[in-house]
Amino acid sequence: MPKRDLTSEVQRGLGPREGKVSEKKNYHMSMDEFRHYGRSVVDWIADYYEKIESFPVLSRVEPGQIRDLLPSEPPINGDSFESILKDVDDIIVQGLTHWQSPNFFAYFPANSSGPAILGELLAAGLGVQGMLWSTSPACTELETHVLDWLVDMLGLPEKFTSKTAGGGVIQDSASSAALCALLAARERATNHDTNAHGCDGRLVAYASSQTHSSIEKAVKIAGLGARNLRIIDVDDTFAMSSDALARQITEDRQAGRLPCFVCATAGTTSSNALDPLPEIGRICREEGIWLHVDGAMSGTAALCPEYRYIHDGMELADSYCFNPHKWMFTNFDCDCFYVADRKVLIQTLSILPEYLRNKATDQGAVFDYRDWHVPLGRRFRALKLWFVLRYYGVNGLQHHIRRHVELAQRFAGWVKRSEDFELMAPAPLNLICFRHKNGDSFNQNLLDTLNQSGTLFLTHTILNDKFVLRICIGQTNTGERHVLQAWKTIVETAEGLTKTGST
Amino acid sequence: MPKRDLTSEVQRGLGPREGKVSEKKNYHMSMDEFRHYGRSVVDWIADYYEKIESFPVLSRVEPGQIRDLLPSEPPINGDSFESILKDVDDIIVQGLTHWQSPNFFAYFPANSSGPAILGELLAAGLGVQGMLWSTSPACTELETHVLDWLVDMLGLPEKFTSKTAGGGVIQDSASSAALCALLAARERATNHDTNAHGCDGRLVAYASSQTHSSIEKAVKIAGLGARNLRIIDVDDTFAMSSDALARQITEDRQAGRLPCFVCATAGTTSSNALDPLPEIGRICREEGIWLHVDGAMSGTAALCPEYRYIHDGMELADSYCFNPHKWMFTNFDCDCFYVADRKVLIQTLSILPEYLRNKATDQGAVFDYRDWHVPLGRRFRALKLWFVLRYYGVNGLQHHIRRHVELAQRFAGWVKRSEDFELMAPAPLNLICFRHKNGDSFNQNLLDTLNQSGTLFLTHTILNDKFVLRICIGQTNTGERHVLQAWKTIVETAEGLTKTGST
Repeated sequence: MPKRDLTSEVQRGLGPREGKVSEKKNYHMSMDEFRHYGRSVVDWIADYYEKIESFPVLSRVEPGQIRDLLPSEPPINGDSFESILKDVDDIIVQGLTHWQSPNFFAYFPANSSGPAILGELLAAGLGVQGMLWSTSPACTELETHVLDWLVDMLGLPEKFTSKTAGGGVIQDSASSAALCALLAARERATNHDTNAHGCDGRLVAYASSQTHSSIEKAVKIAGLGARNLRIIDVDDTFAMSSDALARQITEDRQAGRLPCFVCATAGTTSSNALDPLPEIGRICREEGIWLHVDGAMSGTAALCPEYRYIHDGMELADSYCFNPHKWMFTNFDCDCFYVADRKVLIQTLSILPEYLRNKATDQGAVFDYRDWHVPLGRRFRALKLWFVLRYYGVNGLQHHIRRHVELAQRFAGWVKRSEDFELMAPAPLNLICFRHKNGDSFNQNLLDTLNQSGTLFLTHTILNDKFVLRICIGQTNTGERHVLQAWKTIVETAEGLTKTGST
Repeated sequence: MPKRDLTSEVQRGLGPREGKVSEKKNYHMSMDEFRHYGRSVVDWIADYYEKIESFPVLSRVEPGQIRDLLPSEPPINGDSFESILKDVDDIIVQGLTHWQSPNFFAYFPANSSGPAILGELLAAGLGVQGMLWSTSPACTELETHVLDWLVDMLGLPEKFTSKTAGGGVIQDSASSAALCALLAARERATNHDTNAHGCDGRLVAYASSQTHSSIEKAVKIAGLGARNLRIIDVDDTFAMSSDALARQITEDRQAGRLPCFVCATAGTTSSNALDPLPEIGRICREEGIWLHVDGAMSGTAALCPEYRYIHDGMELADSYCFNPHKWMFTNFDCDCFYVADRKVLIQTLSILPEYLRNKATDQGAVFDYRDWHVPLGRRFRALKLWFVLRYYGVNGLQHHIRRHVELAQRFAGWVKRSEDFELMAPAPLNLICFRHKNGDSFNQNLLDTLNQSGTLFLTHTILNDKFVLRICIGQTNTGERHVLQAWKTIVETAEGLTKTGST
């Protein structure tokens, strides 16, 4: 094949838009430039954290406002790194909702930390793929190792470690973990026939009315159909009724259905309810149903022995996940997903084309994590988790989790002692569900007013058909000052709305 | 609720293992420390790239070797950042396969660049969630915007832009994109009944024998079953036979099945074969079947007008993906996934629990990207892609893609002119499939010897039942010197093996 004549191609109109191949030999950022701009970005981030409380927590932009500031045409010629970083300030920052602000109390925390950010930086710099053990052995082995550590640190059952028939893997999110758990459950229940022949319409899964929406999504994706997800009633603490679960399973069996999967939650998203794992686990064992436990945010609390009760009954679970990217100072994405029987999971998700075959895999001596989740490629996410565990140590992590729970409990105490506000759900850990006694529209108005103020960001839920405010305390830098100020702002804003006759 | 007495709890044995809550008030890395250690990591990465050619490309560790160097117990007390970074050098680096080495020619490139790494760093520092528009509007809008830019830059059909009924989203990988495409196809074919009631066993999907393994994985996950994936024959260029596809569809219709999904490939993983999109697209249109086109690596070539022919027929596709994290200097993960009809995709994957409701979503004025893929949470991945597009510009990207193709074509020329080696597949772009004429075991031996040498890393495939070597040229810093040296090493190693009588 002759050497291509690019100059001639450009002359024939095949070249870049500007009409000429640039004379520049290399458009890459040199390592000297990388050292320089790397420092700029590190400093930018430090500056950002130092002034983060000066931004409105919830972005105030309108739909389309950011896009209007961006050129409609892609850049033909490269820009300087300085100009790009300037546009971050001038265009992007106003469109951010500041999840790392200590005044962010919405949804769940997605906290981060210095060691995590630098672990992510290093992973990006190394740019290795961990799809197979052989594609970067350290990527797989460090992941297996720190996930084993976490079994120990959280007091989880030994069966979830790689030393047994189980093991852990990092997923991007609890949604993906739940999907993988459901798929493994589906295959175990049908002896891997569904993977071969497809769903046959008999499979049924179970969750409570308070279970995270990702379970409904997973049931749809996996081909079971949303109508085959049974929504089990909850008790007055918003925890799944194990009696109702048992009744529904019996009913389904009698109708010739095949119950395959139950998702129980250790700390629901809506109100932090704790499903009764021992009772649910006993039912699942008796019925041969896969029990997945979702401890996405609250699982981290088990770092502290005094909160480990939230996992009581876990020895009866087939799989479990929690998210260091929520409340353990590890930037998203980092969901730790454990199975008690890794063979079922691997057999469910394994595909081995010729171009991925290698000796280590053929000999069965290693984990190939692409068989543990949906994607093939994978980043070196264990690095940031390792950095966090090493930098904080068990003591450091326990200290901060205890501090967050203590602050949340103080907030709950203020609500209880208030004449205007009431607690709307048990608050075992760091999430408080409360509302003003003035009713739904007042609370919606209060929420909107608070969030528009920019001084804090809360979100809401519906409990017993009532509009309820949620305050979730778990951001890295949230301290006493921020929680005190939040309560003061809430009380004063409610008083202001009451005075102006708002409803 | 009374204020918790943590000191008393510790005294009652509920505290951390060391027996006492540390006196330390704060275990976090301060911003001054972050500035300092951030520079250390930036410099570490620059140093790594400067010496990357001194490492064996393929890691030489044995299974378990890295874990043996890690303490079996998790750290109780935090370590200094210096000691963690030292362990990266002492423990981790030997267990890396150096994907960013210019001598990495295996699998596919997973190239990166300074602007991408710094974009990832900034995204980690900001730590925002882009699950909803409202959770960080800039995260959604920048993503929509740069994906629109890329439609323009690659010369893709206008229907994939957000200005029409379509739009693009960043997925973690082409595997996940294919799954989402299949799910949308499944729902379109069944009028969203499968999401409600589950798979009914009639659905059939189509791919070629050369299509990426992720399609089989997706078909299993989505509940269709692997037996309902029809593997269509390929022609002598390893491209899907559209005649065979048409015949199989007719046969399935006659058997009462419901064909719903075809995956065609613009550049197969195994040999870079180009499926005939115009013919396949015409069949899919006539049959009302969803056509997904996978351009994972090769799609990037369409940045250059002279290679855009690989996408001829794309106007007939329902969805398309390519991976800037393969060959466009953007570190993993960054797959750009486009649909022509976003409503179908959104209706397929949308779940809206109360705690995620907000005005912008209710008004339908915005994209909420969590409805475009499996996970709920999402990082600000658009940032690194924007950094790359801005820093290189169209001209810079075109320059480097052309250079890679030119180097690959020169390599192909050397193979063609060699008496000992032969080309085993057409080589339209940057992947060359070749082998020594001495047969399978010689080539396996040659591959093992080359990879054990540490000076380069190649992988293999099987084509027409023959063991074939693959050399894929697309690493950021791969230049003429590396490709010349690779060919020289391959030739000399083969000569050495021939002389020693190896077969």
